[in-house]
Amino acid sequence: MIPNWLIQRAYLTPNKIALSFKNETWTFAQFKEQAVTRAQKLRANGFRQGDRIALLGPSTAEMVFIIHACMLADLEIVMLNSRLTNEELKYQLDDSDASALLVSDELNKRIKGTNVRILPFSSINKSEVVPFDIQDSWQADRTITIMYTSGTTGFPKGVRQTAGNHVSSALSSVLNLGLDENDVWLCTMPLFHISGFSILVRSVLYGMEVRLYEKFDASLVADEIQKGTVTRMSVVSHTLDKVMQELEKRDAIAHTTFKTMLAGGGPVPIDYLKRATELQIPILQTYGMTETSSQTATLSAADALRKMGSAGKPLFFNHIKINGIQNSGDKGEVYIRGPHVTPGYIGRFSDKTPLVDGWLPTGDIGYLDEEGYLYIVDRRSDLIISGGENIYPAEIENVLFAHPGIRDAGVCGQEHPDWGSVPIAFVVASDGVTEEELAAHCEGRLARYKMPKKFRFVDELPRNASNKLLRRELKLWVDSE
Amino acid sequence: MIPNWLIQRAYLTPNKIALSFKNETWTFAQFKEQAVTRAQKLRANGFRQGDRIALLGPSTAEMVFIIHACMLADLEIVMLNSRLTNEELKYQLDDSDASALLVSDELNKRIKGTNVRILPFSSINKSEVVPFDIQDSWQADRTITIMYTSGTTGFPKGVRQTAGNHVSSALSSVLNLGLDENDVWLCTMPLFHISGFSILVRSVLYGMEVRLYEKFDASLVADEIQKGTVTRMSVVSHTLDKVMQELEKRDAIAHTTFKTMLAGGGPVPIDYLKRATELQIPILQTYGMTETSSQTATLSAADALRKMGSAGKPLFFNHIKINGIQNSGDKGEVYIRGPHVTPGYIGRFSDKTPLVDGWLPTGDIGYLDEEGYLYIVDRRSDLIISGGENIYPAEIENVLFAHPGIRDAGVCGQEHPDWGSVPIAFVVASDGVTEEELAAHCEGRLARYKMPKKFRFVDELPRNASNKLLRRELKLWVDSE
Repeated sequence: MIPNWLIQRAYLTPNKIALSFKNETWTFAQFKEQAVTRAQKLRANGFRQGDRIALLGPSTAEMVFIIHACMLADLEIVMLNSRLTNEELKYQLDDSDASALLVSDELNKRIKGTNVRILPFSSINKSEVVPFDIQDSWQADRTITIMYTSGTTGFPKGVRQTAGNHVSSALSSVLNLGLDENDVWLCTMPLFHISGFSILVRSVLYGMEVRLYEKFDASLVADEIQKGTVTRMSVVSHTLDKVMQELEKRDAIAHTTFKTMLAGGGPVPIDYLKRATELQIPILQTYGMTETSSQTATLSAADALRKMGSAGKPLFFNHIKINGIQNSGDKGEVYIRGPHVTPGYIGRFSDKTPLVDGWLPTGDIGYLDEEGYLYIVDRRSDLIISGGENIYPAEIENVLFAHPGIRDAGVCGQEHPDWGSVPIAFVVASDGVTEEELAAHCEGRLARYKMPKKFRFVDELPRNASNKLLRRELKLWVDSE
Repeated sequence: MIPNWLIQRAYLTPNKIALSFKNETWTFAQFKEQAVTRAQKLRANGFRQGDRIALLGPSTAEMVFIIHACMLADLEIVMLNSRLTNEELKYQLDDSDASALLVSDELNKRIKGTNVRILPFSSINKSEVVPFDIQDSWQADRTITIMYTSGTTGFPKGVRQTAGNHVSSALSSVLNLGLDENDVWLCTMPLFHISGFSILVRSVLYGMEVRLYEKFDASLVADEIQKGTVTRMSVVSHTLDKVMQELEKRDAIAHTTFKTMLAGGGPVPIDYLKRATELQIPILQTYGMTETSSQTATLSAADALRKMGSAGKPLFFNHIKINGIQNSGDKGEVYIRGPHVTPGYIGRFSDKTPLVDGWLPTGDIGYLDEEGYLYIVDRRSDLIISGGENIYPAEIENVLFAHPGIRDAGVCGQEHPDWGSVPIAFVVASDGVTEEELAAHCEGRLARYKMPKKFRFVDELPRNASNKLLRRELKLWVDSE
């Protein structure tokens, strides 16, 4: 049994700041009041314990209140990515069998042609209040969130993240990062990703303020870091670079109280690490995924240069192994075990277990060095990480194949100075098919960040004898350009 | 599943200091080596996974290595109190059915007339090394330690403390106290009590140095606190006072890095709190017991004066209620629930469950104020807390009743400026029985700290109609003296 996070936190430290957004702040007591009222309004809309709803909204205080209201009302939350197209969102609404979509008024217009019940935030807030008994504890295996992530097939899978998963993740993290009563975590990561959502969880577990931004703004972030109004932040390389540029422009450094820049989505370039050292920004590189409810391994700032390119060591409650490998340095598939690993999926993948003998195969290829530091050498399913968003080539290929003029298609990533990597499409097409036509076809079917940045027309794609696409060959084509 | 504490910690932070004792220090890698070697030597002595042994030794580095060796060898450890008499120790050896007693050479002579196999530390260290597969993970319900505590009957009960109990306690504590990578916890509390043992657990979970002292020495402790070589410490009021006296004598204050003085064993007097404020020592008063594997509630330093006499609020993963009481301020028995609560006892009490509907009745009487702060107004079973040691009147009465000249006996506590409280015995005795005779009778049967400080000869004891001793009446007799 796990105490109801917000109820317990508001009891323990009612007067601490829980959240700040723009010029407003809320203590945990005020935060609880906001969330409880909305939970009671959700009840008025007929939702009951265990119902599953989908949630789509920007990173605002209102969104955070609604998230906590859903938890208080014992609803399972399908966190929808606001960058997705209507088609992609409809797939997730359909697959998750959500009984309703709670959507911010500004994003409401994004959803078209679905039969699911739609409830804009303004309607929720206009509802009556129906008091109900709020649970003081939760079962550890209760599903809190569901986040979709793709894989080899290109069909997004809805990953369950339980109360136990989230708690284990936050506790493992605190043993790694430490905790100070004055900590403030700056959140510019999307709340629909585990990188952002996990900050909300840490907040209620630690009694820590979240400083929330709707959008990443390098100048405002640099202000906070320079002045010491925040002590920790999560970034990807792209946003890290922007913040550092801003500080460099000002000839400023991070405030002495700034303790952790948690960098996910692949290794931070050595040049960035050196600049960060100059700026007195401690970079902690982390490796995690939706299936592990955030961090699974983290590289300490002290090891950043000594262990360049490493994802660090597992957090305290986790284990990492290279499957089938005994010797350090030998490469193989990275397997993860721990209380933070998802118990499984919902929807069309609900009967597939993600675990093999208690271990999660990540699909990533890596090795452990002689000291036990993890290095990822090849991403799962040729994953393309672009500005912190995961892009699975198969998902783009599926869309291309749906075009009548496409006879074959293959996608891989190309390095990009700003985004880390961007998708490039190779196609075998009928005569007369143009790049513009393919771009138009993809629009509406693929979120903007997944859109191929180039279409290359070729005569044939590299496939092996069993017709499997050799994406590594494609990568060589790209690199030779 | 919980990672094997020391193995995981030595993997994650091999070069951090784990332990310092006198002029020696050990990193976690060195610490692990010491413990593994001793575990292999224990194997050579025939111990196998799941065996239960008893352990008796002073607070030395060797003792800490043996404790961890027992955990690595998957042994259940009955932690014996070195202040107990031979008779009291024999009861616990017998009740626990320990397959052996591991004992420091200096304490070996304390044990007489038992059939249990005795293995002095020097013999263990002379043994061969028998390598074995050390588990990388433990079941959460694995019993790590067993500590004896008395109760209403006066017969000590062996309380099981599982891996899950200890981990929950350490994690709840870190969310309350915070964690810094430079933390060092000064340990002068006995390791056989949960107050001391829990520091060892925090050390391996947090990757934190323990600065260990065999005996409490006010002058040395004051040095550490003044110089900032330690950041946290556990005390009882008695030792707190001595440390403060020492600092006051020097006209010194605590170093700015000193963060937590965790004070257990009953409320800290207001005079002490005021002196601590002057000395810049943050006092966090805590309420806990053997059955809750250390802290269950803690009062923050900021609340110390505003909530004088309170034990604070529960730690994050715990719940506290006053049984049967709805209104704040109303008194009743304190009930505790959480993952830190023991699953039960061993030995003669093994078939008694400590829980009622999932809650642990503490026997203590208290109330929660309107903000949810816990106040203990009357201790369980008229518990006498003397210098941090729990003394149960029934245990002393049982010994007195064994004297042929005693017709009735009753014990209660008397306030004492140094120890908080000391036991006073009221006896109805045959003619000719003297105080000296009773003292001689108790010696050898009762640990020194349990010895009645006075024997009062009376004609009759206050008993109610059902012959139950009215200890509250005794208390009035004492107070009126």
